[in-house]
Amino acid sequence: MPQLRIALAQINATVGDIVGNADLHVEWARKAVEAGAHIVVFPEMSLTGYPVEDLSLRETFAQASRQGVDDLARRLVEAGCGELLAYVGYLDLDEVGPRDAAAALYGGEVVGRQFKHHLPNYGVFDEHRWFKAGQTLDVVRLHGLDVGMVICEDIWQDGGPVTALGEAGVDLVVAPNASPYERSKDDIRLPLIARRAAEAKAPLVYTNLIGGQDDLVFDGDSLVVGADGELLARAPQFVEHLLLVDLDLPAGGHCAEGEFEGLQVRRRVVSSDPVPAYEPLPARISEPLSDEAEVWSALVTGLRDYVLKNGFRSVTFGFSGGIDSAVTAALAVDALGPDAVYGVSMPSKYSSEHSRSDAEDLAQRLGCHFRTEPVEDMVRVYVDQLKLAGTGLAEENIQARTRGMLLMALSNLDGHLVLATGNKTELAVGYSTIYGDAVGGFAPIKDVFKTHVWELARWRNAEADKHGETPPIPENSITKPPSAELRPGQLDTDSLPDYPLLDDILDDYVEGDRGYADLIAVGFEPETIDRVIRMVDRAEFKRRQYPMGTKITFKAFGRDRRLPITNGWREGDQR
Amino acid sequence: MPQLRIALAQINATVGDIVGNADLHVEWARKAVEAGAHIVVFPEMSLTGYPVEDLSLRETFAQASRQGVDDLARRLVEAGCGELLAYVGYLDLDEVGPRDAAAALYGGEVVGRQFKHHLPNYGVFDEHRWFKAGQTLDVVRLHGLDVGMVICEDIWQDGGPVTALGEAGVDLVVAPNASPYERSKDDIRLPLIARRAAEAKAPLVYTNLIGGQDDLVFDGDSLVVGADGELLARAPQFVEHLLLVDLDLPAGGHCAEGEFEGLQVRRRVVSSDPVPAYEPLPARISEPLSDEAEVWSALVTGLRDYVLKNGFRSVTFGFSGGIDSAVTAALAVDALGPDAVYGVSMPSKYSSEHSRSDAEDLAQRLGCHFRTEPVEDMVRVYVDQLKLAGTGLAEENIQARTRGMLLMALSNLDGHLVLATGNKTELAVGYSTIYGDAVGGFAPIKDVFKTHVWELARWRNAEADKHGETPPIPENSITKPPSAELRPGQLDTDSLPDYPLLDDILDDYVEGDRGYADLIAVGFEPETIDRVIRMVDRAEFKRRQYPMGTKITFKAFGRDRRLPITNGWREGDQR
Repeated sequence: MPQLRIALAQINATVGDIVGNADLHVEWARKAVEAGAHIVVFPEMSLTGYPVEDLSLRETFAQASRQGVDDLARRLVEAGCGELLAYVGYLDLDEVGPRDAAAALYGGEVVGRQFKHHLPNYGVFDEHRWFKAGQTLDVVRLHGLDVGMVICEDIWQDGGPVTALGEAGVDLVVAPNASPYERSKDDIRLPLIARRAAEAKAPLVYTNLIGGQDDLVFDGDSLVVGADGELLARAPQFVEHLLLVDLDLPAGGHCAEGEFEGLQVRRRVVSSDPVPAYEPLPARISEPLSDEAEVWSALVTGLRDYVLKNGFRSVTFGFSGGIDSAVTAALAVDALGPDAVYGVSMPSKYSSEHSRSDAEDLAQRLGCHFRTEPVEDMVRVYVDQLKLAGTGLAEENIQARTRGMLLMALSNLDGHLVLATGNKTELAVGYSTIYGDAVGGFAPIKDVFKTHVWELARWRNAEADKHGETPPIPENSITKPPSAELRPGQLDTDSLPDYPLLDDILDDYVEGDRGYADLIAVGFEPETIDRVIRMVDRAEFKRRQYPMGTKITFKAFGRDRRLPITNGWREGDQR
Repeated sequence: MPQLRIALAQINATVGDIVGNADLHVEWARKAVEAGAHIVVFPEMSLTGYPVEDLSLRETFAQASRQGVDDLARRLVEAGCGELLAYVGYLDLDEVGPRDAAAALYGGEVVGRQFKHHLPNYGVFDEHRWFKAGQTLDVVRLHGLDVGMVICEDIWQDGGPVTALGEAGVDLVVAPNASPYERSKDDIRLPLIARRAAEAKAPLVYTNLIGGQDDLVFDGDSLVVGADGELLARAPQFVEHLLLVDLDLPAGGHCAEGEFEGLQVRRRVVSSDPVPAYEPLPARISEPLSDEAEVWSALVTGLRDYVLKNGFRSVTFGFSGGIDSAVTAALAVDALGPDAVYGVSMPSKYSSEHSRSDAEDLAQRLGCHFRTEPVEDMVRVYVDQLKLAGTGLAEENIQARTRGMLLMALSNLDGHLVLATGNKTELAVGYSTIYGDAVGGFAPIKDVFKTHVWELARWRNAEADKHGETPPIPENSITKPPSAELRPGQLDTDSLPDYPLLDDILDDYVEGDRGYADLIAVGFEPETIDRVIRMVDRAEFKRRQYPMGTKITFKAFGRDRRLPITNGWREGDQR
């Protein structure tokens, strides 16, 4: 049976950086050729990065992207990749509008060019805003085998391109993807792709992006599935990787042209002679990461790429001795190395002794920079001039805001990006101070519930233990009761239900979008439901001004929940 | 010819507040009945407010909205409006998904129910995310006349519902709208509606919302156009209003059922007997506002409704003596009255004498509250402890941030909403300090270019002169050269091109979406273009953390330009 060697180039593209991304394509295409591949498949919109958002509407950007594809075709020939069939994702623009496109490059030419047909417009996707749908499918015959293409959402929706290729008859389907990470999404991906391969009656090659882009993170997990649903190859998650697979394809060259499923199937023959028989490589199937390792990697990748792709080299934030800043610090060191992390202890007169000692312990464990800047003098000037003593909230917030200002001054002096260390539970109920602990360019654990922050801390420490390393997070930061320390003896539980209960309700109300009656039916106390959902309903304004952070769930605050601020609807009133 | 009296209820609904909006419906329906109307037309989604954003995806909200329509039908009968045909906009939900719906209520029943067919998904609209498209048209026969309905975008797109109604044959078309204000949009509206009336071969009744909703503001401008394109009635802008019009309709009761333009036309007869002849009211055609009056009203309305609908009663912000805070103050007093405005002069050691005297003059002219809080002591503690003297940006920003903290403390003490006073030019080029002058819950002139701020100031003073009132804005604030006063002798022109030139370039680059080559072709200096567009390209992060403000242009920052922060694309590199 005819053979083909396919390379899946699971790369980390940067949105907008057409020049840098083109260099990446040349580099990885060369690796593919050196590895003997006949086809290389890059992710969706690999040349422009994904999602380009409203850059798709900017004509000069679309022109640069189109030009980039032509230039890349020439550069690939110069780099000795002229006989490689390279699938490259990019932004196109024609008389209908912008397109989520992919081109097949061969011998310095565009030999196929296709636009995404199914445009997702839910969750983080706004593709009806950004693109117009494609209605054609370009099949390229290489070494006598017919290769069809579908783009990302085309495999997530029933009907359309995959069905059409199955009816037209192709020998192989390639699927460039930019599928953002979400907890446990990899469990859905493989069965879905197996089903689509069966519909296409051909092996399916799925290449996904990796890396962070604003609040999105892509996990890779590129894979190849046979027409019978068998997993033939799988790439590791969250790392750039060239996955190679040898396919033995049953027949060749029987693809029909014309209309299938309302889509126009067009053909182009590049070469008809089969590849001479060769010894195939062994199958390479990476194990997916464990649940906690996957989340940790997502958070590290999201943080690293936000910092580096935005031209920063270091980060600074408050080391409070608490669990949130400790986990943020461990993530930052894993992402950027200890020398790029600048911890600052900012005690006020209400800070406990352990808040300083635990912060120092954390810095020592991580080997990162550390300084102490008391905020008492700053706080005192405000409190005295504005007579804030004993006013409660106004006085408490001054402490948090003084710290935010202090960190921003250090950022202005030394060029660090400030990180906000808040978690999803705090953000959900509005337990944070705008311009205080909410200060920062990025919030690494914004989408992690408090109880999950503890789990991650324990998991990360256990991983260190396993590898004979110092556990990064002080045990005391994990076990002590959480406190904002903005007044004497303050505990989070003064204002909030216990975190396990609170997170349980939030999971139903936020992630599950359940209403008041549903929460009663689940068995929560009416008073507690009432208290929690009123806090959530009222905190939208604070959430809007909070920095972005890596999204790891379907209902992350930000892109996934787009609520009005001016809003008379309170679920809490629906009793 | 058969007569009908139509009432257009141009109301100010609040998003989410189904209970409060239902009360508004009863109140205005009674007014319509008292005025002898046979039909009342409320705006699009009048019962839920518009836009509900992702509330459309919340099942409990959709259920409450559906229930709200049934309850309203009953309440209208109780209120003596049972024989009024009332068109009410709301959110529906069926097995296909959420719907942008309107119901025709009569005699306590829903006698017609229709879903918007054309879903806009550009600019501020994300309706493919929020709704599913409708495929049916409900025609109601009242007093022997056939009344068809189209919803908002259905009149902005060619083909579809209007054409179908024209083919089916109706005597009148009602069009509930929620069409956000934009400069000069009223110039487009009337000719468009006239064209659609001709297509429908029937008079068209267009009711638009008024009021502010987050960054959107609706101007009303409800109108009625005859089948021949003649303007028959027009409501004033930016105020709640019941517009009455008497129509003499040529024929009655010839509407066909079945499929037209792929849409299913359904009919329901409510009453067949014509109304006994009566003396029609004179035509009421309000003059649209002048360009400057229109913008001023939009800004006042947007600010007023953001403050009041979010439960605030007063605002505070820095009175710097400059033009931006002076115009913001005049807007705030026009929106909320002088007693709700708390100006704060916050001089630092670099503040000029006139910055204090002009601020005081402003407060006296407006009759609002005013206090002085020097920030020198606060600034000194930071500068000394962190050794910021002579560091440039870090020291300058401390002054701006100290002021932001001070205002937030006053907000926490007294419950004022803090306003940010930045203009669109500053925001475009990033000439602002995050957590400094960017502090606030709302930014009234966020979408107004600097040169336009001056024009508005002159216009507002001239209006006062015209009415024999004290011009609100000190002449010196209009004429003096702008300065941030963060270092001795600093002027905006140290960092920026002259504002008229800068705004000219921004108008082309931001509003016009023109590229580098286009700007060269327009005749700007390459160095200036380069400098300006690099500033714009780099300021996206700052813009993201800026508070929202009333949108008055097509390319307002926020909803209308959705750019990635992590972004390798720089138009400035495209030379």
